[in-house]
Amino acid sequence: MKLTKSELENRLKNLNGWVYSETSDAIVKEFKFKDFREAMAFVLRVAFEAEELDHHPDIFISYNRVNLSLRTHSENGVTEKDFKIAEKIDKIE
Amino acid sequence: MKLTKSELENRLKNLNGWVYSETSDAIVKEFKFKDFREAMAFVLRVAFEAEELDHHPDIFISYNRVNLSLRTHSENGVTEKDFKIAEKIDKIE
Repeated sequence: MKLTKSELENRLKNLNGWVYSETSDAIVKEFKFKDFREAMAFVLRVAFEAEELDHHPDIFISYNRVNLSLRTHSENGVTEKDFKIAEKIDKIE
Repeated sequence: MKLTKSELENRLKNLNGWVYSETSDAIVKEFKFKDFREAMAFVLRVAFEAEELDHHPDIFISYNRVNLSLRTHSENGVTEKDFKIAEKIDKIE
């Protein structure tokens, strides 16, 4: 079920560096690495989490920068599923 | 060296499905796969080509879709280097 704005804000406090993007109606975070190899290694670990949870962030890679964007398309907004994978992703680093 | 508009148009004819994007001043292509796994497998192969040629496309992954964008930042436009890796990428599929 889609989270309300206040639920969202509360949940975001427990994450590290994720913000809500009004334009994409998603929670987003930018990650920066030493180089492309390190960025790809991170993306691959995110990919395994995504497959395991069957929930797939949009991923943008620009050399050493990775932008992740999470929303639940079926609920047309941000849900508990997005926070679940965000927490897993924050444990990767 | 940055290619002229007419050089660009000529070179694009020899590629498969790449177009010039005015807004990003880059050559771009969208690839579609069966699912996320297939998309990631493709991205990983692109990543190895990018490291080998030391030229890294911007990569956007949205479940089974992958968008690649190629430009040469040091020349502030599209160069021969971009076509070289685009040709390699087209051989992956």
